[in-house]
Amino acid sequence: MKPLVLLGSGNGLDQVREMLLVQRPELDIVWPGEAGAERAHVALCWNPPPGSLGMYPNLRLIHSIGAGADQIFKDPSRAPQVPVCRIVDPDHRLGMVEYVLWGVLHYHRSFDLMLQNQARVLWDRPAQRPARETKVGVMGLGELGRAVASQLAALGFDTRGWARRAQQIQGVTTFQTGEINAFLEGLDILVCLLPLTPETVGILGSKTFAQMAKGSVVINCGRGEHLIPDDLFAALDSAQLRGALLDVFEEEPLPVEDPFWRHPGICLTPHIASSASYEVIAAQILHNLECLEAGASLANQVDSQQGY
Amino acid sequence: MKPLVLLGSGNGLDQVREMLLVQRPELDIVWPGEAGAERAHVALCWNPPPGSLGMYPNLRLIHSIGAGADQIFKDPSRAPQVPVCRIVDPDHRLGMVEYVLWGVLHYHRSFDLMLQNQARVLWDRPAQRPARETKVGVMGLGELGRAVASQLAALGFDTRGWARRAQQIQGVTTFQTGEINAFLEGLDILVCLLPLTPETVGILGSKTFAQMAKGSVVINCGRGEHLIPDDLFAALDSAQLRGALLDVFEEEPLPVEDPFWRHPGICLTPHIASSASYEVIAAQILHNLECLEAGASLANQVDSQQGY
Repeated sequence: MKPLVLLGSGNGLDQVREMLLVQRPELDIVWPGEAGAERAHVALCWNPPPGSLGMYPNLRLIHSIGAGADQIFKDPSRAPQVPVCRIVDPDHRLGMVEYVLWGVLHYHRSFDLMLQNQARVLWDRPAQRPARETKVGVMGLGELGRAVASQLAALGFDTRGWARRAQQIQGVTTFQTGEINAFLEGLDILVCLLPLTPETVGILGSKTFAQMAKGSVVINCGRGEHLIPDDLFAALDSAQLRGALLDVFEEEPLPVEDPFWRHPGICLTPHIASSASYEVIAAQILHNLECLEAGASLANQVDSQQGY
Repeated sequence: MKPLVLLGSGNGLDQVREMLLVQRPELDIVWPGEAGAERAHVALCWNPPPGSLGMYPNLRLIHSIGAGADQIFKDPSRAPQVPVCRIVDPDHRLGMVEYVLWGVLHYHRSFDLMLQNQARVLWDRPAQRPARETKVGVMGLGELGRAVASQLAALGFDTRGWARRAQQIQGVTTFQTGEINAFLEGLDILVCLLPLTPETVGILGSKTFAQMAKGSVVINCGRGEHLIPDDLFAALDSAQLRGALLDVFEEEPLPVEDPFWRHPGICLTPHIASSASYEVIAAQILHNLECLEAGASLANQVDSQQGY
């Protein structure tokens, strides 16, 4: 039996291994350095360290244990012909929809202000406006972004979407790469669900914020690297942005000294917007192991040219 | 021109008057004590003081400027044959759906805990569970309750509804008055959207809380009188309830000395869950004035036997 190697750290590699062994006890799942690791034919990854993939020359499959695979593509030692797969979980989509919906409603209905008012013992009724007057833009229209945009449109928000390729989503006005200015113009709430690519690094910066409405809001559920922290602080301090809801960070867990923790305009959550259950992760990995053994086509393979 | 009299205080009677006069400048809209008030044929009400309605013997229509009419029915001086109407606004329904959705997601996804954790600079990822494993019960299945329950079911929550009369709502398990125990059993989140009647006063009390799941949550968007404050504090302090989101209070604005403001388990909002726009209120009142003049049947008349 050729081994599987676990690459990376945190976020459940251990739990996924256990879950896999419950269902296929004969699997040989090892950490780097353990016996036989160098012969691994499959790598199971969560944020694999750059340079790690190249140490396993027999790899026939690289499998992310999450929805993202950008860390895998960042490893220059990766053999480009080895297929990369990721997890696509229906509950994962629902989880993201819930998270973004909470965030959009939080700002649209001024819950951020009302929580502050309660602490100040202040009865102050914020003006109410219908959802159709709040402009929400979703950057990234993959599996998750499409589901989020559809749900926002169904609740009546004036919803826009932006993606590299042309898309059609009912009730959503969509824009392509070159139309980013029209997409951003006057947005009240911007939701980032982009994959991390060289083109999207730092996209949440001063130039983007300046095109949105005065007093608008950013929700980042993409990757920490999408956001330029100093630009965010400047936009919050000038009141160009009224708030930011952040779920992802360049370093996780977020270091205790990071100013994100303490800025009054920032609401942060510990990368929980959406995660697949270990049962689902294990089931999808097992399915792809069977496909690999049978020579069948793999499920949820990531386009290595685009990185998502 | 027979006058209209404004009865009650706060919450926009002045703004509604202005909006009506913009469209029908010839209307004679007066406050009690102003010239001609005693001859009023229409009363426009928001929380009219008990005994006030009986002072206008020529009333042919009593119109609430909100969705509720319970304060009108509480006035023992009201002539029972005079029709009572209220405002029914589609945006009002959407507003309530948004509010309850935020509240349900807030607790379902542990945003209450995460906000506390941010203040404590603590990176702690709460367990995630799918919506289908969270049991949400909606008490009161009128215009608003039905819309709320439908939306929760559409998002996948295990949704129950409870009302006096049998109801059918897609995806929602419904219960009638006598089945309250089955309705409450094991609920994670209870949403109160009941009208205020002698049967529903104090329904949010110890007996109800005890039947819900340990660590569950109450959301009150009905009336302050539905809730027994001491029972809520006891349930929160014993951790039978984990939190409460309150939008309505017996006295509004909530007095600064009220302990609701400061209890860590309580999130309170200043009666903003949903309110119709002044434009819509004025338009619906004008429509009913025309019906009255034409002898046509009134829109959104309230059943005086049931009080809603």
